[in-house]
Amino acid sequence: MEKHELVIVGGSAGGLQTAICAQKHHGLKDILVIRMEEKVMVPCGIPYIYGTLGAVEKNIMPDKLLGEAKLKIGEAVSIDRKNKTVKLKNGEEIGYNKLVIATGSTPLQPPIPGMDKKNVWFAWKNTDYLQELAKAIEGVGDIVVIGGGFIGLEFADECRKKGHKITVVELLEHCLQLVCSTDLCIRAEDSLKTSGVNIITGNGVKSINGKEKAGSVTLQSGEEIKCDMVIVGIGVVPNVKLAKDAGLEIGPTRGIKVDEFQRTNDPDIFAVGDCAEKYSFFNGEPVPIRLASVATREGKIAAANLFEPQWRNIGTIGVFSTVIGDTAMAMAGLTDTQAQKLGYDVIVGEAEAASRHPGTMPDARPMRVRLAFDRRSGKILGGCVCCTMTVGEVSNIIATAIVNEMTMEQIAMCPIGTHPFLTASPLAYQFTDAASNALHKVKNMVKAA
Amino acid sequence: MEKHELVIVGGSAGGLQTAICAQKHHGLKDILVIRMEEKVMVPCGIPYIYGTLGAVEKNIMPDKLLGEAKLKIGEAVSIDRKNKTVKLKNGEEIGYNKLVIATGSTPLQPPIPGMDKKNVWFAWKNTDYLQELAKAIEGVGDIVVIGGGFIGLEFADECRKKGHKITVVELLEHCLQLVCSTDLCIRAEDSLKTSGVNIITGNGVKSINGKEKAGSVTLQSGEEIKCDMVIVGIGVVPNVKLAKDAGLEIGPTRGIKVDEFQRTNDPDIFAVGDCAEKYSFFNGEPVPIRLASVATREGKIAAANLFEPQWRNIGTIGVFSTVIGDTAMAMAGLTDTQAQKLGYDVIVGEAEAASRHPGTMPDARPMRVRLAFDRRSGKILGGCVCCTMTVGEVSNIIATAIVNEMTMEQIAMCPIGTHPFLTASPLAYQFTDAASNALHKVKNMVKAA
Repeated sequence: MEKHELVIVGGSAGGLQTAICAQKHHGLKDILVIRMEEKVMVPCGIPYIYGTLGAVEKNIMPDKLLGEAKLKIGEAVSIDRKNKTVKLKNGEEIGYNKLVIATGSTPLQPPIPGMDKKNVWFAWKNTDYLQELAKAIEGVGDIVVIGGGFIGLEFADECRKKGHKITVVELLEHCLQLVCSTDLCIRAEDSLKTSGVNIITGNGVKSINGKEKAGSVTLQSGEEIKCDMVIVGIGVVPNVKLAKDAGLEIGPTRGIKVDEFQRTNDPDIFAVGDCAEKYSFFNGEPVPIRLASVATREGKIAAANLFEPQWRNIGTIGVFSTVIGDTAMAMAGLTDTQAQKLGYDVIVGEAEAASRHPGTMPDARPMRVRLAFDRRSGKILGGCVCCTMTVGEVSNIIATAIVNEMTMEQIAMCPIGTHPFLTASPLAYQFTDAASNALHKVKNMVKAA
Repeated sequence: MEKHELVIVGGSAGGLQTAICAQKHHGLKDILVIRMEEKVMVPCGIPYIYGTLGAVEKNIMPDKLLGEAKLKIGEAVSIDRKNKTVKLKNGEEIGYNKLVIATGSTPLQPPIPGMDKKNVWFAWKNTDYLQELAKAIEGVGDIVVIGGGFIGLEFADECRKKGHKITVVELLEHCLQLVCSTDLCIRAEDSLKTSGVNIITGNGVKSINGKEKAGSVTLQSGEEIKCDMVIVGIGVVPNVKLAKDAGLEIGPTRGIKVDEFQRTNDPDIFAVGDCAEKYSFFNGEPVPIRLASVATREGKIAAANLFEPQWRNIGTIGVFSTVIGDTAMAMAGLTDTQAQKLGYDVIVGEAEAASRHPGTMPDARPMRVRLAFDRRSGKILGGCVCCTMTVGEVSNIIATAIVNEMTMEQIAMCPIGTHPFLTASPLAYQFTDAASNALHKVKNMVKAA
């Protein structure tokens, strides 16, 4: 029987990062990655295949990243924990010393009548499927996107760039509401509306209508919207059947339970990525933050801990960014609503300034940072930033501040660099100024009390 | 006699930020800013006046930033510490309760014969002077830039964009050598060379030749270079005469000595910006890091401490960024050489990946991060990044990591966000991967030992 020091089930971001880091960290050579797909899609690139990238082939994670790890295409169907083997669909059994489960997630299919029609599509991470989707979009006019999260809005934006007539239907009051502060949600909506996308919020889809193919959707409000295609992006479900069947514990957000070292309740089996349960950096409670960047972080941690606990996962912080039209936006940590639910007394600091300085520099645009702090400890809880192409990295500054539990004073005094072409003025640098703003609010509250 | 709660001498970055923050932090209304210039130049914008901005008027710090602070144009010539007054050149005396000295710096004029010729120019922060400089450049062909630091290279790059023939002469082995690691120095040099700029390093100017006007420079090597204009950018000298004459102590880098609260040896007098001594975050020793972003940070700190010590300046970290041709680069903290001089056992980690992901995204370019760590503590000491327009913000991530004394393990596991349009792939995010790289080097060293 084939046997390996490390077997990884799943070859997307989490599994691949585990394979890379196990080699680097332990010099491990005997690694087998088992995955179902011949080619692996870059998960965040999926909405861009049809428009910006132009082809499925341009969105593939290169297998050379596997290094010396071996690759087997197949489906793992069961784990025998006693004998430490994984069984594949074709009957093959493979022994492991350490096993990492990185089986990812599957797009959520809501129980809406008509969801099974031919032209209803999902962001399924499968090359052939996405190739078909790209072909199918080309032939249609009106598209209804169900779900106004990142995936939904990115699909909407890419399709409208190619001239399709788009309607986004979001159940909540605002698009992106679960991850963004309201002002950013509105900016994203406005950006899409300006470019001709129809945005319907606070309204769900009651049914998808048509014979074999969807020809319209009926909203909960009764309104009917004609369409030639439906794209659904309302979240994902962790793929945990393999783990569950093997008796591994499952957590409240439906991911595989792991400890702070990414170990499942079997010390020889780890779980990383979308299939694994995540725990909040802020209070240690389970949180459903499923992102490729979170998966790769867990892959690194699992790889370090394979043979003995070395690196502690101090908790998950959500860091999201996107570009909708010409509006780039990013956020890290808790939204105000999330922070308030956790019992924090939230103080918000804001700062807006030109993205370049002086503001007369070519291509200078207003850039806004908004930070949320806990009033009692002064510690940063979250933040968001828009609207320039540097927001992704600014949200990573915010994430770095969060993980270091920086206070508003520390951020206000944080050493930063500035340059006319690259950042705001040192007199108005948004990240530090937003902290100053929060601090002055607190001072004024204390004075007024 | 006119008297104010707070008098600030100097209206550039440090003085202005002090005025802004004293109002915000203490609600202070009775503030007078005394400055010599009618209009204040954005210091970092000076090299861009002639080229990118096109006019001196586009590089002015708006006086509306002063808020309710009053403004007096004049030159402070002496301080009477006993009676707590400042005397102006016109004889006027102004009383203060607290005084902030923010007199800035003056371009260094090296003792080279011919330095006083008519067409030898400096980056002097004076509107009229810079207006004349801009006019003068327009009429000339060949320009020699003495000094290959940021200011020198930025002037060189802007002038070559406008079609001038440029020679940069740098005394050290490489341009930018005092602040950058060698690979970045070389990249900056190569970028200029490719665009036709002549770069001469390891060679100084022995004399500037000509009758009234410079017609050539003679190098230490004997070579003579023809020119129609000389621009000198080799550093600055703190303006400390006012402070020194008043008996305030001066430090080893020629700045006004200050304590951790930006107070001089007179507890009612503070100093901020280029005129104030700076102390290294790493060992508390004086360091000559004179930047607008450092000045504004000190202004904030001084403003907070006016009436009682509140905010401690935990030390200066240099954070620099620039764009030379199409090569943006940035650095934070210590260079390897500086770190080694301080006695650190330096371990370098490096990572390069496409700036967007997948690498097939339009405008994706290689982006490289290089981090230096102390082997013993594992703490980050410095880092640099090139070559995309997000490097300014990435250097601010590095600065945030330095100020939090993050270790290589902590950075490798730092939560970050990624997006196809905005950052590298989560599998290859440069900042965290450079830390992993350093860590694996240490592991391999330990194994090999």
